Amino acid sequence: MNSSFLSHILCFSLCLFLLLLFTLSWLQTPIPPSTSPDHLLTHPKPTQASSLPSTPSHPLDPLTISEITTIRSILISQPHFSSSPSSLIFHSLSLDPPDKDVVLSWSSGDPLPPRRASAVVRFNGQAHSLSIDLSTGTVSSLPNPVSGFPTMTIEDMTSSALAPLSDPAFNRSVIARGVRTSDLACLPVSSGWFGREIENKRRLIKVQCYSIEGTANFYMRPIEGLTVLVDMDTKEVVEITDEGGNIPIPKSAGTDYRYDELRGSSEKGRPLRPISIEQPEGPSFEVVDGHRVKWAGWEFHLKADARAGLVVSAATVADPITGKRRSMLYKGFASELFVPYMDPTDAWYFKTYMDAGEYGFGLQAMPLVPLNDCPRNAYYMDGTFVAADGRPYVRKNMICLYESYAGDIGWRHSESPITGLEIREVRPKVTLVARMAASVANYDYIVDWEFQTDGIIRVKVGLSGILMVKGSPYTHITQFPSKQDTYGTLLSENIIGVIHDHFITFHLDLDIDGANNSFVKVQLSRQGTDSDATPRRSYLKATRHIAQTEKEAQIKLKLYEPYEFHVINSDKTTRVGNPVGYKVVPAGTAAALLDLKDPPQIRGAFTNNQIWVTPRDKKEEWAGGLFVYQNKGEDTLAVWSERDRPIENKDIVLWYTLGFHHIPCQEDFPIMPIVSSSFDLKPVNFFERNPILNSAPNLEKDLPVCTAAASS
Amino acid sequence: MNSSFLSHILCFSLCLFLLLLFTLSWLQTPIPPSTSPDHLLTHPKPTQASSLPSTPSHPLDPLTISEITTIRSILISQPHFSSSPSSLIFHSLSLDPPDKDVVLSWSSGDPLPPRRASAVVRFNGQAHSLSIDLSTGTVSSLPNPVSGFPTMTIEDMTSSALAPLSDPAFNRSVIARGVRTSDLACLPVSSGWFGREIENKRRLIKVQCYSIEGTANFYMRPIEGLTVLVDMDTKEVVEITDEGGNIPIPKSAGTDYRYDELRGSSEKGRPLRPISIEQPEGPSFEVVDGHRVKWAGWEFHLKADARAGLVVSAATVADPITGKRRSMLYKGFASELFVPYMDPTDAWYFKTYMDAGEYGFGLQAMPLVPLNDCPRNAYYMDGTFVAADGRPYVRKNMICLYESYAGDIGWRHSESPITGLEIREVRPKVTLVARMAASVANYDYIVDWEFQTDGIIRVKVGLSGILMVKGSPYTHITQFPSKQDTYGTLLSENIIGVIHDHFITFHLDLDIDGANNSFVKVQLSRQGTDSDATPRRSYLKATRHIAQTEKEAQIKLKLYEPYEFHVINSDKTTRVGNPVGYKVVPAGTAAALLDLKDPPQIRGAFTNNQIWVTPRDKKEEWAGGLFVYQNKGEDTLAVWSERDRPIENKDIVLWYTLGFHHIPCQEDFPIMPIVSSSFDLKPVNFFERNPILNSAPNLEKDLPVCTAAASS
Repeated sequence: MNSSFLSHILCFSLCLFLLLLFTLSWLQTPIPPSTSPDHLLTHPKPTQASSLPSTPSHPLDPLTISEITTIRSILISQPHFSSSPSSLIFHSLSLDPPDKDVVLSWSSGDPLPPRRASAVVRFNGQAHSLSIDLSTGTVSSLPNPVSGFPTMTIEDMTSSALAPLSDPAFNRSVIARGVRTSDLACLPVSSGWFGREIENKRRLIKVQCYSIEGTANFYMRPIEGLTVLVDMDTKEVVEITDEGGNIPIPKSAGTDYRYDELRGSSEKGRPLRPISIEQPEGPSFEVVDGHRVKWAGWEFHLKADARAGLVVSAATVADPITGKRRSMLYKGFASELFVPYMDPTDAWYFKTYMDAGEYGFGLQAMPLVPLNDCPRNAYYMDGTFVAADGRPYVRKNMICLYESYAGDIGWRHSESPITGLEIREVRPKVTLVARMAASVANYDYIVDWEFQTDGIIRVKVGLSGILMVKGSPYTHITQFPSKQDTYGTLLSENIIGVIHDHFITFHLDLDIDGANNSFVKVQLSRQGTDSDATPRRSYLKATRHIAQTEKEAQIKLKLYEPYEFHVINSDKTTRVGNPVGYKVVPAGTAAALLDLKDPPQIRGAFTNNQIWVTPRDKKEEWAGGLFVYQNKGEDTLAVWSERDRPIENKDIVLWYTLGFHHIPCQEDFPIMPIVSSSFDLKPVNFFERNPILNSAPNLEKDLPVCTAAASS
Repeated sequence: MNSSFLSHILCFSLCLFLLLLFTLSWLQTPIPPSTSPDHLLTHPKPTQASSLPSTPSHPLDPLTISEITTIRSILISQPHFSSSPSSLIFHSLSLDPPDKDVVLSWSSGDPLPPRRASAVVRFNGQAHSLSIDLSTGTVSSLPNPVSGFPTMTIEDMTSSALAPLSDPAFNRSVIARGVRTSDLACLPVSSGWFGREIENKRRLIKVQCYSIEGTANFYMRPIEGLTVLVDMDTKEVVEITDEGGNIPIPKSAGTDYRYDELRGSSEKGRPLRPISIEQPEGPSFEVVDGHRVKWAGWEFHLKADARAGLVVSAATVADPITGKRRSMLYKGFASELFVPYMDPTDAWYFKTYMDAGEYGFGLQAMPLVPLNDCPRNAYYMDGTFVAADGRPYVRKNMICLYESYAGDIGWRHSESPITGLEIREVRPKVTLVARMAASVANYDYIVDWEFQTDGIIRVKVGLSGILMVKGSPYTHITQFPSKQDTYGTLLSENIIGVIHDHFITFHLDLDIDGANNSFVKVQLSRQGTDSDATPRRSYLKATRHIAQTEKEAQIKLKLYEPYEFHVINSDKTTRVGNPVGYKVVPAGTAAALLDLKDPPQIRGAFTNNQIWVTPRDKKEEWAGGLFVYQNKGEDTLAVWSERDRPIENKDIVLWYTLGFHHIPCQEDFPIMPIVSSSFDLKPVNFFERNPILNSAPNLEKDLPVCTAAASS
């Protein structure tokens, strides 16, 4: 039973007293109409109008509403499940794509290859990994991972959050803190794996609650130290720990962030005059059949995914000289996240989130807010997901696509007074951004795939939203006992922002001018010189090494041992003989520093290096494993890579982990200004020369004619 | 005599045959009218209309045209110089600002404090560092640095480049290569210091030439190995080395980059539909009295500088809660650049440019191209400089200022299906960019100071322009002898892009809520745990250390030993007791790896760390020394810092060096798509909470109404 269903019940004033208390708080938080044009859809609405076509037109198109409906009837009619269709729970259902060669040999207009789907369902507590052939209706069973459980359903999350309310001891603790149960807002916190016997058999979750009294930002009002261990299947309260009895609930004043709540405040915001990216002649990209994007020589397939969020496939770029299409990235997506908090105490030690595999990075990606999440010139794409009961539903506006122009420069050269040549050539920089924003409870992750005309893809991750904070008895840092570890920063009275890391690991199946590629480490190292031959004592020399096996491609970045990391096609060279390639160019990042034997780090071992390269294997797409929830880490990228398979001149996948250390500061309270970082995939001798040499400058005569809005 | 003056002579057809041949080539390269609305000004034009006021109105305003004219007459009438005013050469002349306390106590409307100027002049070969009081007309002499020479004048550069043409041996070599002297374009290359006796007494420069036949991009047609050592004062050819006789001049085909040359080409560019940042109600910033900028709570002073390029001063930000102005950055600018090439052979070893102190980063900053260097909504600011003869001239549109909106997000939060709360709050991100672009011969550096509403200043450096390339006998990499070091990448037939580094060292006089600050290293380090107390084996703990002296603030960044670097005011705390501060947040960068004893690295020792902190000293503004040209490195930031002075609770300067390793690739040919990196100055407990909490979302009713351009 999920929360919007709860609201439905509520509309008919027919629900139980407890649920009424629980859901009342939602009613206290209306959404400002100005910023939210459409509605949350977690409940099946197959009739919902969608920007997506009703039938697939490309081998990589996601399952459609009707395909999902068909699969559901196929599965519930399976002998094994038909005894009790209602107890068949869908944890994931997505396209099982055709083999790469089939997809690459397909061309528009050809009949689609057979449509297959992968499903993870549970029946009577038993997980089943299934493969379904839509044309034949046949279902085959696949082996399950050795440990762990499937991604939670939304229903798992919402029902677990309600479970403690039926426990008298819990309610006593809450009331003892002076919190009305009607003001409770509770969160389901994935409990990880720490080697306890109970973790092997039962799906467990920790529930912690907040007071929503007086603010929509209940995250700033933790009922600290009160943790309820819940069995996700039985909804049974397994264990309650209560260690924070002496910790007050932080005040609500100053925590709300909603425009409608603040617009009245005496404090002046800093109103800026309207500014907008305008292209009255329309965008320069087109979206064919709902998923195929064409822009400035790029062509790629873009779709929403319940687990990865956003998937870029079959990206090719037109060679500016020959006009030929050249492959570059077969599949790119955020494979897993790892967010360990740095507090080992009872109510915090387990907070080591893996948002993609535990909560569904796509399931948590809400509709984007026009004009604010994306500019006015944006195009929006929906996602089609499956509910626990197997019914499809549409997530409106989950992805946006827009051309960005920030006033930046693509390339330029002026001749200087040294030569006096009167040359000033400049080309503006325009890019194409594909964006999603996932809200995993408190935190918001903005993921941008930015395509540039010069062949670069910049993958950018932004962090915003609300901190996970800890209640504290203290209102001033001078009150902390000198020896006591605070685990973070005092952000406001009784509120500590706990130190944590964010890691986002990207799966990048690069196909540089073909599927068979190699990984090259280009080292820049100091060379001594012969003092008779030169006045210089040193210079930097680049030496190339092609990694033969996986272990040679396990990379820790070092500022004082610089490398470039290329993925090349050894069989293709430029006119003058350089192998064609792309390089991964890290920007600011952070490394995982936890003890490698720490249970969370064993599960998050895919963050042990910034770069890994593996031979492509359909079974190795999820860096933390297929069943991440509560698993023991036997199925991670680190384990796969340890096999040390050959990777030279093979179809390889490059994995890059973008990291952030976050020591909170008061500016992050009560809601965080965005912090972002990125990495680039940059052509390196992929083109014969600058691919935007022939681009045109902006000319006044081409620019739009704009006037102030009528209302102003 | 400079090159535009040459063109003047030319107009009257009165010049010498040789000069005619030399300058003819310039006439072969008209500038596309579409991209260059105004003219190069290296020749004095005091009457030139300027956006700048004719009289100073702020203590930090740069010298005006009339002030420069006054100073010139003061100096040429000095007894010491009056004997031969025409041999008095002005190498630099700029405001000598009042002391910080005087500036800070001044407020608008007050009379200006006495105006003083600093000048570096040369007379009969002798350098003089002078201080001039404009009110009294008194001139005092300051001690010169122990080694080195002043920044070159434009006339030094242009006349040195002509010197070889009068040398018969040089002309023979050129003709032997099959190059007509009329096709020569020669560059003055700073020769550095390598311990030769001759370097102690004479101002030397190395001149190398290119063929401009068939292309404006002569940089791609080097006459390889031919190097002429010239005495900058006598214009005497001291030495000619010619080692590249067997190396052909690379072809001109495919090297030109000018729009007018390429628009005809069969190859299709990728025309994009018009896109523009529009704000028909006008910008949200104002520029008061030509230099004082006010925007979104920020106030700062912005000006052009002949050596640093762009200087940001007296930046303060309004506290969103109290409305009070709070100081943040007293003075920020690019202090020095260091660009060592990684080729120790005769024609290359000396290429270790220090563009600010040798060539003048501002002197080389050309007028920005409207609509392309900066968007349509940009405001332009001129620079006022001094020519070698002491006369002022105006560099039009040298700085631009504009509000940028890329469609990005300032902060956001959606409630997810986990809670079902219908909240989706998003605020767009708008910033203010101050930009300059310096063209130091072949290379273009774009420097952005980006002010954000959340209190962040992002300093971004972009690299574009044209590579410094080396001629090669080879047309394919298979032709290189296996053992031979190529020093770079074969970019095209007979053209090698030589590996090099770029370092830009910024002087950041932070005044966080007052002048007396401290530098804090916040280390994140792994802590073990007690296995009885927690299932976790480790976590990361932050520990703070206040640097006592300079050596504790010499920082090399390490990914696996992470720190935050704060500048705090120990006397000011937030409501809950955190010291108010800003942190410097590095993004992608590169470290200096040359031998510390290598002569270029001794001079470039300011790049030995990424971060330094020094007590503020008016004499320590130029990281490579006041007289950088051909100096021995006794006056660098590294030498100052070695004194290990106390820096706790003092008026301190933080120095940050942004670095790039550049292994060229074919995409950089014949002109480079921009590569950029940045660092942030980010408030950390400077504000009580998120300073943009009260910002407003975009609303459709406020946005402009735009139509396609009439012409389309």
